[in-house]
Amino acid sequence: MAPMKTSLLAAAALPLLTLSTPLPALAQMAPAEVERLRDAALKDDIAWDIAEGLTTEIGPRLAGTEAEARARQWAVAKLKSLGFQNVRIEEFTMPTWVRGEEHAEIVGRFAQPMHVAALGESGATPPEGITAEVVGFESVDALRAAPAGSLKGKIAFISHDMKPTQDGSGYGFAGPARWVGPSIAAEKGAVAAVIRSVGTDYHRNPHTGGTNWAEGVKPIPAGALSLPDAENLARMLERGGPITMKLVLTPKWIGEQTSGNVVAEVPGTDPDAGVVAIGGHLDSWDLATGAFDNAAGVAITAAAAKRIMEAGPPRRTIRLIWFGAEEVGVLGGSAYFERHKNDGGVVFVSESDFGADRIWKMDCTMAETAKAICDRVAGYVAPLGIMKGRDPAGAGADLGAWARAGTAAIDLNQDGTRYFAFHHTPDDTLDKIDREQLRQNVAAWTAMLAVVANAPEAIGPVKREAAQ
Amino acid sequence: MAPMKTSLLAAAALPLLTLSTPLPALAQMAPAEVERLRDAALKDDIAWDIAEGLTTEIGPRLAGTEAEARARQWAVAKLKSLGFQNVRIEEFTMPTWVRGEEHAEIVGRFAQPMHVAALGESGATPPEGITAEVVGFESVDALRAAPAGSLKGKIAFISHDMKPTQDGSGYGFAGPARWVGPSIAAEKGAVAAVIRSVGTDYHRNPHTGGTNWAEGVKPIPAGALSLPDAENLARMLERGGPITMKLVLTPKWIGEQTSGNVVAEVPGTDPDAGVVAIGGHLDSWDLATGAFDNAAGVAITAAAAKRIMEAGPPRRTIRLIWFGAEEVGVLGGSAYFERHKNDGGVVFVSESDFGADRIWKMDCTMAETAKAICDRVAGYVAPLGIMKGRDPAGAGADLGAWARAGTAAIDLNQDGTRYFAFHHTPDDTLDKIDREQLRQNVAAWTAMLAVVANAPEAIGPVKREAAQ
Repeated sequence: MAPMKTSLLAAAALPLLTLSTPLPALAQMAPAEVERLRDAALKDDIAWDIAEGLTTEIGPRLAGTEAEARARQWAVAKLKSLGFQNVRIEEFTMPTWVRGEEHAEIVGRFAQPMHVAALGESGATPPEGITAEVVGFESVDALRAAPAGSLKGKIAFISHDMKPTQDGSGYGFAGPARWVGPSIAAEKGAVAAVIRSVGTDYHRNPHTGGTNWAEGVKPIPAGALSLPDAENLARMLERGGPITMKLVLTPKWIGEQTSGNVVAEVPGTDPDAGVVAIGGHLDSWDLATGAFDNAAGVAITAAAAKRIMEAGPPRRTIRLIWFGAEEVGVLGGSAYFERHKNDGGVVFVSESDFGADRIWKMDCTMAETAKAICDRVAGYVAPLGIMKGRDPAGAGADLGAWARAGTAAIDLNQDGTRYFAFHHTPDDTLDKIDREQLRQNVAAWTAMLAVVANAPEAIGPVKREAAQ
Repeated sequence: MAPMKTSLLAAAALPLLTLSTPLPALAQMAPAEVERLRDAALKDDIAWDIAEGLTTEIGPRLAGTEAEARARQWAVAKLKSLGFQNVRIEEFTMPTWVRGEEHAEIVGRFAQPMHVAALGESGATPPEGITAEVVGFESVDALRAAPAGSLKGKIAFISHDMKPTQDGSGYGFAGPARWVGPSIAAEKGAVAAVIRSVGTDYHRNPHTGGTNWAEGVKPIPAGALSLPDAENLARMLERGGPITMKLVLTPKWIGEQTSGNVVAEVPGTDPDAGVVAIGGHLDSWDLATGAFDNAAGVAITAAAAKRIMEAGPPRRTIRLIWFGAEEVGVLGGSAYFERHKNDGGVVFVSESDFGADRIWKMDCTMAETAKAICDRVAGYVAPLGIMKGRDPAGAGADLGAWARAGTAAIDLNQDGTRYFAFHHTPDDTLDKIDREQLRQNVAAWTAMLAVVANAPEAIGPVKREAAQ
């Protein structure tokens, strides 16, 4: 856990105030004012404006590319125009992978084209592609059970059975097909791997996303097939006899490029009270305009912070961070944590990075002396149909390092039932954002920030199991 | 109206039998037998087997291509294996258009890629594409109103506002954007045209389909944008200032190729009673495996005919026709009509070409002396949730020429609410077929064929307004 001197001192100075008795009303934002801000946010247009602008004027913004750099410039201009202070870019560099040509087809028996997209960090085929027999596996476990060397010269096809879930847990269930499947196939001699997209929609739009190569494994070409294609391939394999695929995937590494985090602030009145750090990520996968993932998140958090700003300075500084290079390995989040973990200051973290559908559950992790904050936030968001959950708050990918290091956090969990129909596909476009649900998000975030940024309690570090 | 000697003679010979009194029960298939056949079809697997096989083993089958030829061979083998008689291919030739490279992107301001698909009979750009300013039109009417020459050097973008409809009428409403929009744009000097896909889904899968060039108009490159892309482009144009698109579309004509209709029969016991001609089309657009459009139609009609065959020979021969080259201008349907319109024989036509969702309405067009057939069919399909409509039966694209020429017809109209989400897109794949709704189709078709093929009435020609 990283030391956070200011907040530790503050926590030490305030224990008597944070016992079980209610705090003096003056020290908090008045409940009627929180409610007013929350309810006004139900008519919010700021978040839509940001999401609409980013997806229309920039579009896809793959980490490390010129498009992501344009997005940063766009973000700086937008945040300044909204009145945020200390707007700045914190750059970092990163090895950058870009998509090339991609094409898959069954040749010979059952010849027909298939829709494929390279996974992030996929290896490349020669320009003319590779042609090999397909060996199918129902799951990563079935692939693991294949004998060493048994895939020599073959293309591995790795399937799974992901279903939509409200809490998004289907991603953890099916994700290994993408995260580790290709590496395991490579270890067993496969010349390429194709997976059933880690998603839940039946459109011919494969889901991309990063794949991970185990230490010492040479990357092979690795792509995702859309669900209709994956099921068609499975039907072909069920008929018995060899099925041959021609696969062209020519992604490449273009060297060390610049990415960056865009930071903006709503200055607080009490520099000793610590910083409330919130945000989402500015980069997106290259296949879509990144509306759910994650124009929505930067939009929701900025709109809520702007609403608090307009209500007058909060006690704590709200720091809005639009992270770079989340999709390709949380590089912006890691860079920010490494650069600032010893600054002191950040006492609370919360990220929005799960689309724009309604928030259904709030999880809150606070020190014992600050748990009343959780209860107050829960009370204000309950009328929005948000229940209090019992899970630890993880603060999302970009701010998760802070939470793991013991920083207090709240998760405002969005309904994920639709999320993996769009996630990492070409279909993650503005039309998927429902304006009313987006406003419910902004209202919940506004109420949460009103409470947390103004809480009279010290928001000290948390002893978590995960932090031990 | 084409003469149909046999049926005219039959109609002349039977007027006394077809007055308003009920027919002798023995002359019809017993109601209990019709009901038994109908209800058994609610557990049908034949149609699924055909649709599954065609989409899996052949996949896309664009008219005039080698894939369509493979589909014909597959069809002949399948129909023979099902026990149909007189299985044959009636070939014809056709000028054949095939898709090339396709790529669209906004360059300069708001630079980003867009998803495009060439429309059938689109002209081609040079291999390096063309780059031009986009001029947007809300509708074909707005395009028509543009001054002559005003699109010189521009790319026209033609939009519309299509909504899902149960009866599919949205296609007629929005279709002109595709059918005539590019030709009008060309006449006004446009170097290319892109349309909002004539469809109702929000996926990045453009809807292809044929476009028509007016006499004397030189085809220009013409493509469809997916709805998310079309709306993104519209948002860019709303911001004012020039928007520039680079468009690469390199389709080409590959000369006169062979297509064909696959014909199979369930021979009837009464050669003088006329032929009942049914079917769907075997070809599909190239972007998908053509499950709704129209593996479903060939599957439903074949499954129903097979079920009648198994029940014992019907009075009338049932002729099943799986047409070629429907998508590119009803070439198979026209070839069949021209070849056989003077044969006599065909007294009734019905096509299935609107997906696989449940049939909700039956339209029936018969001579006055045969209208009791309509009522009997309506009675048998009512328990399947199918109401009797009041529209003339058009018999679909492939058999419509017969109906227009005065042949009796029934339309078993499928629910089109979902149809234009998949139609002519890469998403028209097997997973879109709901097995239970497919079975309801087979049951309705089985009941209809049981009645029509065995009807004791003469099924004579119809006097229609459309036939005059």
